[in-house]
Amino acid sequence: MAMLQSIKWENNVIYILDQRLLPEKIEYIKCTQYEEVAKAIENLSIRGAPAIGIATAMGIAIATLKLKAKTPEKFLEELKPVFWRFIKTRPTAVNIKWAVEKIEKLINNNFHKSVQELKELIINEALRIHQEDIEINKSIGENALPLFKDGCTVMTYCNAGSLATGGFGTATAPMYLAKERGIKFKVIACETRPVLQGARITSFELMHAGIDVTLISDNTAGALLKRGFIDFVIVGTDRTVRNGDVANKIGTYSLAVLCKENSTPFYVAAPLSSIDLKTPSGEQIPIEERNPDEVTTIKGIRIAPVDVKVINMAFDVTPAKYVTAIITEKGAFLPKHIKYLNDEKRLKNFRLKL
Amino acid sequence: MAMLQSIKWENNVIYILDQRLLPEKIEYIKCTQYEEVAKAIENLSIRGAPAIGIATAMGIAIATLKLKAKTPEKFLEELKPVFWRFIKTRPTAVNIKWAVEKIEKLINNNFHKSVQELKELIINEALRIHQEDIEINKSIGENALPLFKDGCTVMTYCNAGSLATGGFGTATAPMYLAKERGIKFKVIACETRPVLQGARITSFELMHAGIDVTLISDNTAGALLKRGFIDFVIVGTDRTVRNGDVANKIGTYSLAVLCKENSTPFYVAAPLSSIDLKTPSGEQIPIEERNPDEVTTIKGIRIAPVDVKVINMAFDVTPAKYVTAIITEKGAFLPKHIKYLNDEKRLKNFRLKL
Repeated sequence: MAMLQSIKWENNVIYILDQRLLPEKIEYIKCTQYEEVAKAIENLSIRGAPAIGIATAMGIAIATLKLKAKTPEKFLEELKPVFWRFIKTRPTAVNIKWAVEKIEKLINNNFHKSVQELKELIINEALRIHQEDIEINKSIGENALPLFKDGCTVMTYCNAGSLATGGFGTATAPMYLAKERGIKFKVIACETRPVLQGARITSFELMHAGIDVTLISDNTAGALLKRGFIDFVIVGTDRTVRNGDVANKIGTYSLAVLCKENSTPFYVAAPLSSIDLKTPSGEQIPIEERNPDEVTTIKGIRIAPVDVKVINMAFDVTPAKYVTAIITEKGAFLPKHIKYLNDEKRLKNFRLKL
Repeated sequence: MAMLQSIKWENNVIYILDQRLLPEKIEYIKCTQYEEVAKAIENLSIRGAPAIGIATAMGIAIATLKLKAKTPEKFLEELKPVFWRFIKTRPTAVNIKWAVEKIEKLINNNFHKSVQELKELIINEALRIHQEDIEINKSIGENALPLFKDGCTVMTYCNAGSLATGGFGTATAPMYLAKERGIKFKVIACETRPVLQGARITSFELMHAGIDVTLISDNTAGALLKRGFIDFVIVGTDRTVRNGDVANKIGTYSLAVLCKENSTPFYVAAPLSSIDLKTPSGEQIPIEERNPDEVTTIKGIRIAPVDVKVINMAFDVTPAKYVTAIITEKGAFLPKHIKYLNDEKRLKNFRLKL
């Protein structure tokens, strides 16, 4: 099975697959400066909550290589603008802040070490975050795998795939595992306007891995759900909060409502890193508004009148009541039990058998 | 108010707005030969069921001007290839056949008249069909107008606009009337994938008329409805059947479900010509599957992997239970009362006050 990789670290160079060029071209952006990595996050060359967390950690690691600081204090001071640059790239995604805080904490915990040692620690941490992400996704895949019965048809939205992560993806992890284990299933990929991650990326990476995938316009999802063609829907998440509300790509909410209306289970694959237990409910999640050009042009071709007003929200919030289960590397849970994620004793009573 | 017209007849010349060039260019195709009109229908320069019916009638009228026949018999014989040419343009469109049959019947009913008189009758009939379409749409507009309160925001889908008809459109007719009467309102136009009629045509024709319109990706509709930004939704229909089920552009069903979930009224503007009382329910409506290229390419630019499988249904069926009211030129009715449309005595008890 040929699974594509979104990001690679080789000899102190970061290679980012330029997903804006998919599906025509498989081309990697070679980054030796953190600014190149930040730009790649900003312009969506790399996207997907876990992948941009990894890119942030690697980007900070590569920034350290150029720093001249001689003391840990000065080193941390010089890194602050780098942290800030990454945090500003994408406001809704929690993984960037998570990666920045992880590295800041690592430095603070090792303030007795030399700057050279700190640089090595940070590089190793970035590589560890990448490796850990792959392991986490495999665990999510194992936990979701019981949903995949021979002959089933599953719908997914946007790209919570290998290319949104360090590898395997979140919503796609059980697909890759099911494929490896010879389970026969079909995937319906929604194209996901405006940025078309489903058309350009999900259908591409699944085809690349030999998985049976069919592309639809997002507007076709309702008709297929109504006809009973879909056994369940599984999507990723950019941020899931304490009460189980799920922020994800704009249109996820609509799909969840259509699932409820048609009694089709709606699952969210969520690594712990995307679960924000500090935010009480979806109402507090800031929703990024993006450039109108994403709606009015496609690959530079204009599809709407010049100067037409546009609302282009990048995400929406799916209230917990529409979510059948949230599948994490720790197991699958009802949305209302997500708040116990850090309370192993209570959590074990709430693990669902899918 | 500058309302764009899809088709005009001036001094025995037909002007057809070339909708393929929208929104970049407003360019009329000047037709003095029926073949030019047939080509314009065929290549989608003009589209929309009522509009192509009008174009057919006008096209036949212009054909008669060149005919040398001296007797009604010979005249009808010379017109037969013209009829056939139009019927072949869009073989499934019912309005073309309807227009051809209307003119054939007109000739047969006036066989005692001179060829010159027949030519005048046919031209007048074509202009009458056009004018009647405008009057029907204005009546639909008047009947829907009470929904438009100062400050309201209305959402529409696809293009049930002036450019799909002889003028005013169906779902857009109350917008043009509200604008004329100084009511302040905003329109949210859904782009309508895959063919983007909302982005290319609806937002364009409303902007052109000075109506405050904002374009969104279809996926944004749910988030706006959830936030309570939308007072009501109004759409057109390709076919509404006896039990009140509504066939319309793919994605209409999803929008209706989202309206129900958010307690937002969902209205369908339906001229009588689009209501098919012979078909008992939506399940009997055949759903056209169209070319996958509509999903995988936009204006010739590829947005999905080569050879990806696609499901591209052109329409979906919105069950009557999601429809707040069906607004016709005879008034607004609950979907379940549409079956009484030809029974004036019962119908008058069911007319809704919007």
